[in-house]
Amino acid sequence: MTRPVLQTAVVGATGYVGFELARLLLRHPRLKPPLLLTRDSGKNGGGELADVFPHLSGNGSHPLEVFSWSKLHLRGVDLLFLATPHETARAWVPEALRRGLRVIDLSAAWRLRSASHRSVYQFTDEDPEAAEAVAARAVYGLPELARACLAEAQLVANPGCFPTSVILALAPLVRAGLVDAKRGIVCDAKSGVSGAGKQLSPQTHFVAVADNLRAYSIFTHRHTGEILEQLHLAPGQLTFTTHLLPIPRGILSTIYVHLRRSLAAAELEQCLREFYAGSPFVRLFVPPRLPEIQFSLGTNYCDLGMALDGDGRRLVVVSCLDNLMKGAAGQAVQNMNLLYGWDEQEGLR
Amino acid sequence: MTRPVLQTAVVGATGYVGFELARLLLRHPRLKPPLLLTRDSGKNGGGELADVFPHLSGNGSHPLEVFSWSKLHLRGVDLLFLATPHETARAWVPEALRRGLRVIDLSAAWRLRSASHRSVYQFTDEDPEAAEAVAARAVYGLPELARACLAEAQLVANPGCFPTSVILALAPLVRAGLVDAKRGIVCDAKSGVSGAGKQLSPQTHFVAVADNLRAYSIFTHRHTGEILEQLHLAPGQLTFTTHLLPIPRGILSTIYVHLRRSLAAAELEQCLREFYAGSPFVRLFVPPRLPEIQFSLGTNYCDLGMALDGDGRRLVVVSCLDNLMKGAAGQAVQNMNLLYGWDEQEGLR
Amino acid sequence: MTRPVLQTAVVGATGYVGFELARLLLRHPRLKPPLLLTRDSGKNGGGELADVFPHLSGNGSHPLEVFSWSKLHLRGVDLLFLATPHETARAWVPEALRRGLRVIDLSAAWRLRSASHRSVYQFTDEDPEAAEAVAARAVYGLPELARACLAEAQLVANPGCFPTSVILALAPLVRAGLVDAKRGIVCDAKSGVSGAGKQLSPQTHFVAVADNLRAYSIFTHRHTGEILEQLHLAPGQLTFTTHLLPIPRGILSTIYVHLRRSLAAAELEQCLREFYAGSPFVRLFVPPRLPEIQFSLGTNYCDLGMALDGDGRRLVVVSCLDNLMKGAAGQAVQNMNLLYGWDEQEGLR
Amino acid sequence: MTRPVLQTAVVGATGYVGFELARLLLRHPRLKPPLLLTRDSGKNGGGELADVFPHLSGNGSHPLEVFSWSKLHLRGVDLLFLATPHETARAWVPEALRRGLRVIDLSAAWRLRSASHRSVYQFTDEDPEAAEAVAARAVYGLPELARACLAEAQLVANPGCFPTSVILALAPLVRAGLVDAKRGIVCDAKSGVSGAGKQLSPQTHFVAVADNLRAYSIFTHRHTGEILEQLHLAPGQLTFTTHLLPIPRGILSTIYVHLRRSLAAAELEQCLREFYAGSPFVRLFVPPRLPEIQFSLGTNYCDLGMALDGDGRRLVVVSCLDNLMKGAAGQAVQNMNLLYGWDEQEGLR
Repeated sequence: MTRPVLQTAVVGATGYVGFELARLLLRHPRLKPPLLLTRDSGKNGGGELADVFPHLSGNGSHPLEVFSWSKLHLRGVDLLFLATPHETARAWVPEALRRGLRVIDLSAAWRLRSASHRSVYQFTDEDPEAAEAVAARAVYGLPELARACLAEAQLVANPGCFPTSVILALAPLVRAGLVDAKRGIVCDAKSGVSGAGKQLSPQTHFVAVADNLRAYSIFTHRHTGEILEQLHLAPGQLTFTTHLLPIPRGILSTIYVHLRRSLAAAELEQCLREFYAGSPFVRLFVPPRLPEIQFSLGTNYCDLGMALDGDGRRLVVVSCLDNLMKGAAGQAVQNMNLLYGWDEQEGLR
Repeated sequence: MTRPVLQTAVVGATGYVGFELARLLLRHPRLKPPLLLTRDSGKNGGGELADVFPHLSGNGSHPLEVFSWSKLHLRGVDLLFLATPHETARAWVPEALRRGLRVIDLSAAWRLRSASHRSVYQFTDEDPEAAEAVAARAVYGLPELARACLAEAQLVANPGCFPTSVILALAPLVRAGLVDAKRGIVCDAKSGVSGAGKQLSPQTHFVAVADNLRAYSIFTHRHTGEILEQLHLAPGQLTFTTHLLPIPRGILSTIYVHLRRSLAAAELEQCLREFYAGSPFVRLFVPPRLPEIQFSLGTNYCDLGMALDGDGRRLVVVSCLDNLMKGAAGQAVQNMNLLYGWDEQEGLR
Repeated sequence: MTRPVLQTAVVGATGYVGFELARLLLRHPRLKPPLLLTRDSGKNGGGELADVFPHLSGNGSHPLEVFSWSKLHLRGVDLLFLATPHETARAWVPEALRRGLRVIDLSAAWRLRSASHRSVYQFTDEDPEAAEAVAARAVYGLPELARACLAEAQLVANPGCFPTSVILALAPLVRAGLVDAKRGIVCDAKSGVSGAGKQLSPQTHFVAVADNLRAYSIFTHRHTGEILEQLHLAPGQLTFTTHLLPIPRGILSTIYVHLRRSLAAAELEQCLREFYAGSPFVRLFVPPRLPEIQFSLGTNYCDLGMALDGDGRRLVVVSCLDNLMKGAAGQAVQNMNLLYGWDEQEGLR
Repeated sequence: MTRPVLQTAVVGATGYVGFELARLLLRHPRLKPPLLLTRDSGKNGGGELADVFPHLSGNGSHPLEVFSWSKLHLRGVDLLFLATPHETARAWVPEALRRGLRVIDLSAAWRLRSASHRSVYQFTDEDPEAAEAVAARAVYGLPELARACLAEAQLVANPGCFPTSVILALAPLVRAGLVDAKRGIVCDAKSGVSGAGKQLSPQTHFVAVADNLRAYSIFTHRHTGEILEQLHLAPGQLTFTTHLLPIPRGILSTIYVHLRRSLAAAELEQCLREFYAGSPFVRLFVPPRLPEIQFSLGTNYCDLGMALDGDGRRLVVVSCLDNLMKGAAGQAVQNMNLLYGWDEQEGLR
């Protein structure tokens, strides 16, 4: 039996991602009970997490507390998870690092290195130089690509849900030089509604979503920069489109690439299989089987499948994951495991 | 008040498409009550259409009868609608034409001119020469492209649901020479479940569809040939993918093209607007508005919208329609209206 | 061809009910184009109805205007539909009647005669005596029960969606003295989400509704009073419960009654059939067939079916309707038809 | 760390219930890898469970084997789970007991003691006397009511999903003599589609279920007998109705009872709280909070809430559970834990 050793805290535990994360941390064998925090003393501060998510009731008390730096200090927090708005994470992380905390930030605040990509978020840093220094230390926390760097990281920028699905699908092919990026990559992504968060909007009203499909943010989605940076693509080489599915959770990305040379399906499969040899959370589907959203719901898997045209030049990759798990909270736990040298699957099986 | 003049018959009135068609014909002001036919004396022959679709009850008697050629003759049928399996339509149409009937065939039996495209259906014609002669007379019934030919047609091959959504999106651009087809067109289509028909399969069980999204028939979808033929594209120029949405009806196609030269959004809009000037069933959405599946449900509209990249070279077209209406039964009624010189919108408003 | 004669106006045309009503009025053959009004100059005033509901686009201009009494006067409005909050309708109707307008009020403002039932709405009338006088003139607009009174009515209180489904199921049996109300009537009702209106709330967020069922307002639902009043029941005789279904629209009420004496199914059927002999919008299903929500979606029907226990004493009635049609806008049009002596089904077929 | 000690086998592992059970057994710390069996050599025999449920892939090999008695013997099976059709379980259990196996039967074969209730299943026993002897030994496996008997049981009849939700809601009240059963109990139950099993039928086609609600089996549902027997009610005292919800899984039962005397909410709560004091899988919601289907999905909880009328005489109990967990597979694991004296929550947390 492993003995709990680490004290964690989650800010934003009442959102979809924060709650999923709290559930995972509460059952993780290496952790003391996590502090469950809200940014301010809104209506849920002082209450119980089960008041907000009755799914959790019957499993003891999980009090919600209001965030303060002194509270983190007094309670001996080692690792801070931020499931907050981007702006909050942008403002708080420098202070957290100054105080010696390790941070896994689930917002987009520290994911992008290029100022031009980052501009879509319109951050206004009080101390731009300090912010730049922090940004330089952030590790983009996609374990399958950055496993080695994670052991030493003090700040992990947990990837976006769409980028996780797209980068995992393309990285092995792009790195092997198989993709003809100049001919253009098309990524047609579809997501369930929890990806849009819990705040109310006419677009997430049940009647607006049910019996519907809606494309949005064509050419302008905020996640585009992450994909370009991680795959070293030029802006014009990726067309990234997102759609809102009438389901609560799950992402399916259909990705269209031209190959530099004619390849056999077996070669492609071999390429992916080698790339993900030590990666327990990527599952490869052998053609003609393809992943579906249902298969990975509730798990930390990213499922990949593909179809190759007869001439071996046009390839379609299908990538599925649960946006709240491998696309957010599950990946954050996976990153934590690597930060502390634990088994990558601990608490995620 | 218009006086009903035409006697129609529908074979396959108990399927999704056949029922939708029956509903439209029953309220069309130019028609006598249509004969509602089943292919054989299965369980519903001799019953009432409302026994199969209680939605229709309370509106008088609509008996289901078993098909026979003599019945068509005795009842003075002028126009025959076939909402049957492809093989049935392939076998019956030559006889129908011999008997002087006009036919609107909602199956795929007579849509394709090229034998290579048609080979996916594996038709075995008893008299191949006669079949070829019939095929040569078939008009592909997409009124927005073939309006002029329809007045004289004796056989209308009613287009597939996916091809309707894709061809209407692309035809104006392709015909104007704006599309760089050599760089490849990607069409990522998504459909509700009624598109798969009423027959039972594990893939259409509620539990397999709900909370899910599934890609299927990548590079191999039967509708690909229709799109290629109508747009005069070579096989390698189109990548066509379909997905099954957890909704009963509706199609959204997201279509990615490279333009031959940099264009302004206004030029593209102008191109589409002129092309569809006399086409009441195509609605153009002005950017940044985009069509959604909900907007055209229950109507005969095909809704088109688009997004253009900053450099004016990459274009995404979004095309939505109701697969049972503009994608099948509604379009068949629109074709009938043109066959007989009536207002194109008669019975479809 | 009927000539349009009547000028109508709808206040609240951008809500679910108001839009459904606008669609019906726009195609009603007896009406001039209706004035589509918003209560105040919110964001949609001055715009087009199709900006709010793109479903309607492509059918000409339907401008949204801001309500004012002078506008009604100048435009010669004869009949005013109110699809507004209860409080607005409570405040405006006395003035409308003073100005000689006929009014069909789709809110609950004037449905209840008993002050105790009405107290759940907490109306604060400026002039209570005048309000009482108006209330006394209001006709509860359930045409199947009040057809005769409607021709003369100046103010119609359009019934609630749940009460319509329950009262139509029970009225024939209660009036025939067949129901043993003292043993208690249980009505377990289920509704789609549009019944909760368009305003945003955590309860109508897609993620809160999908894959879920929720009971609410047990013993306290505001619609209870309407049912009690119309059926002349005492409060303790009806247990009325509502549930939120993960569907956009439709109501199914399952109603449990004890009969005073053992009856045969045929007697019950006869009772209902006679009661609804002249009522085109009530459809009776013959056992063992039962209505389902799908059957009446998009129509103005209320579908009734029943199951009788072996001993002929316990009866379950199942009642289905579309909450935006027979439960609101469709019924309002039906009431209008009766106000003006037109065919009850005009514009509703 | 507990050491696996028990060898189990599941027959019917490719159905919804069987798969859910297999997933639970595979991660249960006390168990050796279970034998996953199919009744006969249909298409999946010899394959992998992940071929049928790709959700499971990436977790090692889980071969599907064809059932035989000798296989059970050779592999040292101690405990046999039957997730088969009722008839199969009726035929096989006597032989299993003869061979010294313990059996948890998830079908309805051995749940009913009264021949008249059992008659709805129309079993034809080869040896009626032996069958009667087996029936007499079967323990109805609702742990909250039969915990004490389970340690010694050789045959557990795992309860139906609806009866579990209803009996747990009513047993404390009925046993405390609070319910006036003579006035009639109404149970209006609603279930997701997985409750109907995986076999194809027009009623479970996506298009027939989506956007719909359907009542079925009024007065005739097979589960009625279980409820009557366990609560010692006479047939006329319970009206039990079921509805098919457009969701994959989950049950909500709304239960209406008259109390013998006026009670305070606190008294009722106290009654339930005492009854379920040692029952970790029943969660009580304090009014005005009520359980919803979402809250217990994926868990083994049965959630209970209630609303009491002002006069303290009419009570509505709302009961929710996951039909595949507490309604089937989860309850079977709970029963196994009790059979072997393990912690009731082992493998179910």
